[in-house]
Amino acid sequence: MEQNHRKLKPVDELYLQRAYELAGRGIGDTAPNPPVGAVVVRDGRTVGEGYHHSAGQSHAEPTALDRAGAAARGATMYVSLEPCSHVGRTPPCTSALIEAGIVRVVAGALDPTDHGGAARLRESGIDLVVANDPAARDLIEIFAGSARRDRPYVALKMAVSLDGRISQHRGTRERIGSDAEAAYVRELRIAYDAVMVGAGTARVDDPQLTVRPAHRRERLYTRVIVCERDGLDARRRIFEAEEGYAPTMVLAPQGLRDRLGQLEKCANLLFVGPAGSQKLDLVDAMKALRAAGIFSVLCEGGPTLAAGLIAARQVDRFYWAIAPRIFGNSEAAPVLAGSDLSGARLRFDRVDRAGPDLVISGTMTYV
Amino acid sequence: MEQNHRKLKPVDELYLQRAYELAGRGIGDTAPNPPVGAVVVRDGRTVGEGYHHSAGQSHAEPTALDRAGAAARGATMYVSLEPCSHVGRTPPCTSALIEAGIVRVVAGALDPTDHGGAARLRESGIDLVVANDPAARDLIEIFAGSARRDRPYVALKMAVSLDGRISQHRGTRERIGSDAEAAYVRELRIAYDAVMVGAGTARVDDPQLTVRPAHRRERLYTRVIVCERDGLDARRRIFEAEEGYAPTMVLAPQGLRDRLGQLEKCANLLFVGPAGSQKLDLVDAMKALRAAGIFSVLCEGGPTLAAGLIAARQVDRFYWAIAPRIFGNSEAAPVLAGSDLSGARLRFDRVDRAGPDLVISGTMTYV
Repeated sequence: MEQNHRKLKPVDELYLQRAYELAGRGIGDTAPNPPVGAVVVRDGRTVGEGYHHSAGQSHAEPTALDRAGAAARGATMYVSLEPCSHVGRTPPCTSALIEAGIVRVVAGALDPTDHGGAARLRESGIDLVVANDPAARDLIEIFAGSARRDRPYVALKMAVSLDGRISQHRGTRERIGSDAEAAYVRELRIAYDAVMVGAGTARVDDPQLTVRPAHRRERLYTRVIVCERDGLDARRRIFEAEEGYAPTMVLAPQGLRDRLGQLEKCANLLFVGPAGSQKLDLVDAMKALRAAGIFSVLCEGGPTLAAGLIAARQVDRFYWAIAPRIFGNSEAAPVLAGSDLSGARLRFDRVDRAGPDLVISGTMTYV
Repeated sequence: MEQNHRKLKPVDELYLQRAYELAGRGIGDTAPNPPVGAVVVRDGRTVGEGYHHSAGQSHAEPTALDRAGAAARGATMYVSLEPCSHVGRTPPCTSALIEAGIVRVVAGALDPTDHGGAARLRESGIDLVVANDPAARDLIEIFAGSARRDRPYVALKMAVSLDGRISQHRGTRERIGSDAEAAYVRELRIAYDAVMVGAGTARVDDPQLTVRPAHRRERLYTRVIVCERDGLDARRRIFEAEEGYAPTMVLAPQGLRDRLGQLEKCANLLFVGPAGSQKLDLVDAMKALRAAGIFSVLCEGGPTLAAGLIAARQVDRFYWAIAPRIFGNSEAAPVLAGSDLSGARLRFDRVDRAGPDLVISGTMTYV
């Protein structure tokens, strides 16, 4: 890695940045593929650019090569992710690079799946440099986290006071975060296929869970409610039809089939587990979400669902928005309502300011 | 402020930095005075430097002027804090500056008390520039917070899990923070006259509360235990005599006089409130600390004392060390055990890394 980094000249880093910027245009639209951006540079001039718009459409590399045409011969390709050598819905990118006469490839990160074409590029005499850049790895984090699992990549976002409470009293609604924090989260939703809350939060907070200002994209957003004991009322704002949104999905155990039947008109009901079950197995529930075509989920509470997901080892990343407030009283609702979360291992990897609040984020793994 | 900043040339900023560095040598030693550093510069050469060692000793400015001697005539003085025009145990610094022939003064911050000499300097024709620099204000934060109050400046440091818990079970000892966090806190103690814990913490955690590696200084450190219902045992490590430490102080309500009498050999007992009182009034307790010559306190828990101090509006600054852990269970001890803390207004002003942990710090004020 160190060695590869030294192979990067300052101008290489600039073109890589441009590839990341192009990749970013596909964020939220490309699942199950990652967002990818590519730039073809010949004799110090950009001759072609491309990015992956959505699954089934052309990859970034062939688009950039098409734009470059004959100028690609002898050129360098900067690409945010190792080009694939995999025949999926589109032909392998490595073949296109070789045929176009690319002589050097600078890739931001390696493909975490076995579809990467690094070996084939090198065999064909192309000079491949992998930057292994944190920015490039961030772009594919959701992809890497969902590609080889049978469940979506799950991020958990909670808003808390400094003393870890979410409201003054259990079961009451309270906005903890600032406007800037709310805006931060609405933007975060863009990167995920779905946003999810527990039925208790849908009832108490009655959130709309939309991305505002409205964000046009290829894949419809899905709003998901996880339902167990709490009843659900079709008049909740989360069931309101919104342009760009799939019908809201309700995940519930089989035993709630009759009780939730009235929601059929406004929601997509997904019943999980054995007939008659009253308890939702969150591992099965996440598998069902994935089978329904959802590759990433941002869970926004509440405390019961959050703790349940962690206990079921389903959370990959957390966003902890901390407001400069303290409650201190024992009646205030704690951010996590669970029992054994000792298997979770957290790592903090960034802190952002969101107005007066801080957002600590990081990864969660399990032992 | 903006305008003043524009009057600072890059070289002015460098000399101011040097003044701050000199001031820093007095941190922890100067109460009730602030740490101050001064540099005298003539024709681009440093001709004198000084800092305030401890109360009663020479201020930074006369020391720097003494070193400069005749070279001070026509020179600029860089000083971390507005020079005083106050006759205390030493003569006013402004007079010394004027007599020495200083023609320009660049001060990091204004004196928050009414002892500042800005007006007198300007009247005498000296060109005074005040940078109003955050670094300069940080140096005098403790001084500013204690100078015009009848209690010490109080900082509260707590170590918590991401979900705001301090141990898996109430009443059990658990180290939440990393070694790096512990080192961060031991260093923090240097800036305060005293470290303080509740009797429960002294009993459960049995901390030594020393600065390690040992830090030589002018003022003895004081360790303080706040005692109410919990008994106290003379064998606790906090009572062990340490070089550089005053006898450990026990703050307790008058009603505990008999019960705590056995501690007289190892501690300095300070009884507060009306005869026979069983409850400690923390406002009175802090006043008593100040009357005992303690101008700043770092409180390191536990949850009852922390919440009590906030409720009594005694906390000026918080250090919240967050470890990448979650407990999630309802038996885990919350970081604050109180009832009404709604009067506290917090502002986050910095985040530091301490190994795998984060330390969020900021100010606390009250409405």
